[in-house]
Amino acid sequence: MNKPTSQAEFATPRVTTGPLPASQKVYVQSDRFDDVAAPVRYISVHPSANEPPLPVYDSTGPYTEDGFEAAVEQGLPRKRTAWILERGGVETYEGRQITPEDNGGATGDYLARAFPRAHSPMREVEGGDGKARLLTQLDYARAGIVTKEMEYIAIRENLGRRQAAAHAAETLADGESFGAEIPEFVTAEFVRDEVARGRAVIPANINHPEAEPMIIGRNFLVKINANIGNSAVTSSVEEEVDKMVWATRWGADTVMDLSTGRNIHNTREWIIRNSAVPIGTVPIYQALEKVGGVAEDLTWEVYRDTLIEQCEQGVDYFTVHAGVRLPFIHLTADRVTGIVSRGGSIMAKWCLAHHKESFLYTHFEEICEIMRRYDVTFSLGDGLRPGSTADANDRAQFAELETLGELTKIAWRYGVQVMIEGPGHVAMHKIKANMDKQLKVCGEAPFYTLGPLTTDIAPGYDHITSGIGAAMIGWFGTAMLCYVTPKEHLGLPDRDDVKTGVITYKLAAHAADLAKGHPAARLRDDALSRARFEFRWEDQFNLGLDPETARDFHDQTLPKEAHKTAHFCSMCGPKFCSMKITQDVRDYAGGLSDNERKALEEMSEEERRKGMAEMSEKFEEGGGRLYVSAPGAGS
Amino acid sequence: MNKPTSQAEFATPRVTTGPLPASQKVYVQSDRFDDVAAPVRYISVHPSANEPPLPVYDSTGPYTEDGFEAAVEQGLPRKRTAWILERGGVETYEGRQITPEDNGGATGDYLARAFPRAHSPMREVEGGDGKARLLTQLDYARAGIVTKEMEYIAIRENLGRRQAAAHAAETLADGESFGAEIPEFVTAEFVRDEVARGRAVIPANINHPEAEPMIIGRNFLVKINANIGNSAVTSSVEEEVDKMVWATRWGADTVMDLSTGRNIHNTREWIIRNSAVPIGTVPIYQALEKVGGVAEDLTWEVYRDTLIEQCEQGVDYFTVHAGVRLPFIHLTADRVTGIVSRGGSIMAKWCLAHHKESFLYTHFEEICEIMRRYDVTFSLGDGLRPGSTADANDRAQFAELETLGELTKIAWRYGVQVMIEGPGHVAMHKIKANMDKQLKVCGEAPFYTLGPLTTDIAPGYDHITSGIGAAMIGWFGTAMLCYVTPKEHLGLPDRDDVKTGVITYKLAAHAADLAKGHPAARLRDDALSRARFEFRWEDQFNLGLDPETARDFHDQTLPKEAHKTAHFCSMCGPKFCSMKITQDVRDYAGGLSDNERKALEEMSEEERRKGMAEMSEKFEEGGGRLYVSAPGAGS
Repeated sequence: MNKPTSQAEFATPRVTTGPLPASQKVYVQSDRFDDVAAPVRYISVHPSANEPPLPVYDSTGPYTEDGFEAAVEQGLPRKRTAWILERGGVETYEGRQITPEDNGGATGDYLARAFPRAHSPMREVEGGDGKARLLTQLDYARAGIVTKEMEYIAIRENLGRRQAAAHAAETLADGESFGAEIPEFVTAEFVRDEVARGRAVIPANINHPEAEPMIIGRNFLVKINANIGNSAVTSSVEEEVDKMVWATRWGADTVMDLSTGRNIHNTREWIIRNSAVPIGTVPIYQALEKVGGVAEDLTWEVYRDTLIEQCEQGVDYFTVHAGVRLPFIHLTADRVTGIVSRGGSIMAKWCLAHHKESFLYTHFEEICEIMRRYDVTFSLGDGLRPGSTADANDRAQFAELETLGELTKIAWRYGVQVMIEGPGHVAMHKIKANMDKQLKVCGEAPFYTLGPLTTDIAPGYDHITSGIGAAMIGWFGTAMLCYVTPKEHLGLPDRDDVKTGVITYKLAAHAADLAKGHPAARLRDDALSRARFEFRWEDQFNLGLDPETARDFHDQTLPKEAHKTAHFCSMCGPKFCSMKITQDVRDYAGGLSDNERKALEEMSEEERRKGMAEMSEKFEEGGGRLYVSAPGAGS
Repeated sequence: MNKPTSQAEFATPRVTTGPLPASQKVYVQSDRFDDVAAPVRYISVHPSANEPPLPVYDSTGPYTEDGFEAAVEQGLPRKRTAWILERGGVETYEGRQITPEDNGGATGDYLARAFPRAHSPMREVEGGDGKARLLTQLDYARAGIVTKEMEYIAIRENLGRRQAAAHAAETLADGESFGAEIPEFVTAEFVRDEVARGRAVIPANINHPEAEPMIIGRNFLVKINANIGNSAVTSSVEEEVDKMVWATRWGADTVMDLSTGRNIHNTREWIIRNSAVPIGTVPIYQALEKVGGVAEDLTWEVYRDTLIEQCEQGVDYFTVHAGVRLPFIHLTADRVTGIVSRGGSIMAKWCLAHHKESFLYTHFEEICEIMRRYDVTFSLGDGLRPGSTADANDRAQFAELETLGELTKIAWRYGVQVMIEGPGHVAMHKIKANMDKQLKVCGEAPFYTLGPLTTDIAPGYDHITSGIGAAMIGWFGTAMLCYVTPKEHLGLPDRDDVKTGVITYKLAAHAADLAKGHPAARLRDDALSRARFEFRWEDQFNLGLDPETARDFHDQTLPKEAHKTAHFCSMCGPKFCSMKITQDVRDYAGGLSDNERKALEEMSEEERRKGMAEMSEKFEEGGGRLYVSAPGAGS
């Protein structure tokens, strides 16, 4: 273990804990497994509403438990270890030695302190002895075995479906899912079947037992990912751990650590040990650091070593740009923005420098063999994604996507779970083609897209230019949306940017669930709308994605506590409030008898006929004829 | 004129002036009319780019001229007066006396100072003497006459089309316009024809000669509106004038003054006299103030008086909720959020209280007669729009829309221009139905929508929940998008909220133009993308919608001036930059001969075949067969 030379500089990460407003975290017990209970957040509303607490999906981990004390130097409880051991087929071993290169050669004060507790890694026992290998969630799913992870997921995905049951059929009918098969209720068997078919993934490295199982698939709630990570230029371990917890507090379903530069290994260890959500990385970033940042010096051996390092640490999914093949690279030469994926451009440079096919492609099966032993999921990277709307949907992009389809089938043979990364920058009219092609060539493996950004002209607002594309492609069938923050293209996101990015993507993902006709999605919209209509201000804040900001905005105009219960708002003022008037209208109209309604319509129909008659008379007398001969008249 | 009792409290409004970064405002001279020159903003880029300045549409008025001195107490120059007088058919008259009721009975220190300069209003001379009445832009368009306003609009809408000509065909082919007929070049004749057909409107009250002519129609650039206005609870005249100028600085094409409470008349006068964009209002708001805020006490006479008051002041378009008819009101009784339109709920209450059809509907033709004499455009209000996704596309909403279609045809007979207001809160899968129905029942009159919000669960972020819907419905054919600010549902927007709302809607409108295949829309995206690719940081900021925020975000991470020209950014750091690598790749790939390319592909194809062969061998030996019998296997 590294000596804690930089302890002086190293403040133990502080993270945000405590329940969200009016919320209680509940663990719903499985009636199938005694040691499986999945989290649901219940939001309480004012008694006057006479409504039960609203269940919402919860990605926050134990940090939002009432009275939870974060012990960041301990890491989170490793609950899933018991499940993995009881399934068997794994061995604990010493694992790879950490080298200075793993931290970019950082020494002395530049070396971030290592995480205080060491854990020996687990891996699948050597297979190939003739009997079926069972390690990954995909292995078990295909073997017809429901894992505890699958049961856990079924429980947490089901929130609100009982309440929704009443109008479930109606809302399902109401949506347009473009061929998705969203069930009225999620059973563990349904989870198993979707995983077996490769239509969903459960990113769950056996060396990340702190993580709460979650699923990414078109027939489940649309998920979002938040990117964090330091760079050679800026930011520290403390900030990144805080950002990770902060991102999940607001709803990030997974977090990618995209650190570059120094201290990659130690930063990642602190993050994983404290993360209740799956962690993804792009191993080529660290491999590049190990060779001093010179792409040409990369080798399969260095990359392989990095994969194993990260498998042992517990990374849940790897972005692997194995689709950036030598013959595709020159297809990007005439683009406005060439190759903008970091991983993609590194591999492109390597291929050209050596005039060889990418080692990620030629060694793909060895990569599968390594990843399956830890149940690390592929996120096949789109290294040739468009970096501008001008380059969207071109030959380079789609040639790579077709290759990712080939690789998906190979990975599946090895029992490795797969999702596919997508663009990028795509104008609205070109978005659906991306989804359709991905479904077609990648065997319905989950699509995981960055945005897409629907225009390039709003730096500083790319969480919005991309939130538009994200909501649309989520509706079309994308399973997970990678957030974009306001700092995209400009700088590294800070804490506030992370929150803005997460909330923006949560609302985009929810808009997609609504449009797909998810049976439970509407419950939250309707509950909040009722609160709004009934002037339950506190409920309106608390049912929203960001109660703190909503309350703050309200208080900027009407600070007084009294106003929180006032039956008016600052937009209209006390005397003049549409919602108040509407309540009167409702009382009145609600009281009409059928006869009265009939009479009403007859009366007004008559008036209408009379009105129309008068109108046309006047038209004949008056100016009407004068326009008859006018050119181009449309009326 | 009111005595300036409250002058002490009244600070002369301060407004923001001066050019935007790297921008020059140019007035492009018409070769058809000597006294017509329309504004275009040219954004200069770094000499190294070797690109001409980029023309962008400019809504900012003279405030962004170099060295312009705002004289808010004078108001803007009344350039259009000469055009109106030379066309003839108008008379100047004394106009209606301003009464205390016009300012909500405000007196003493509560009365905001009146605008210092009085102008006598103009109106159409009494018609009906048998000869064709020519006053409104629609009259002239139908008569085959191109007005100076139409020429002005043709010039300002055409920006960049010459540059675009090269790939115009390509980009047009590239888009999906859902039946719009966007021309490669905009001529004054095209403008005239679109107005004559009722497919576009030019909101231009003859008493608002300070305004720069602009057009709202599906075959022109998508426009945006910003709402401002004080309320009984908060905000002042000074703030509202400042907000109006601020909103147009960032791109608002029209501004609606939704003031309620006191000082409505005086606030509006300050706004109109200083506004270079069309101003819209909802006259029923002021009428309600005149009867003490009691909806039942409204009368046709009070409303009529208010219309004339506002026509004489120069309001360019009126929201009139004439589609809220007695027989539709009870259709809202079972809604989750009833009637949320303020105007709609006022009229609903009136109808029920008197048990009569709406006076806006029964007196619709008199309203037309009044509005045509000043060329005020209708914005037929959607008083029954859904206030929650739960209520979207219901019978009440569509019954009203059908009525607006009837009224459109009546208004057209009177030579009054018409646009139609749309929702509201609509989940993504229900948006297109709104556009399709509006086109069908309203004779292609321009659609003007508020958002729509695609989910209800994000108070504090409704500029984004609605920006998603706005971009989509703009793509489908909506001509103008009414912005929503982060304060929607929570409070009155301040200066920052106005800017955020405007920028969000500018990017949504632009995303729509791109997707429609507007021939010039891509120019700005491509210019910015080139700047991004070439690390021209200043250009990237200046070509964006909000250069100040982009620069600020960049500087938060890399403050040093040096970094503005650095060939790397904070996300990757100096050693490790995808864009830099891509430039190398491009140099290399760009230099490949056809033979070399061929060789490349053959080589890699061979490798690929070899690879695949190995893979399947291994598959046969190895785990492959083990999964064959597995249930549900998708590979």
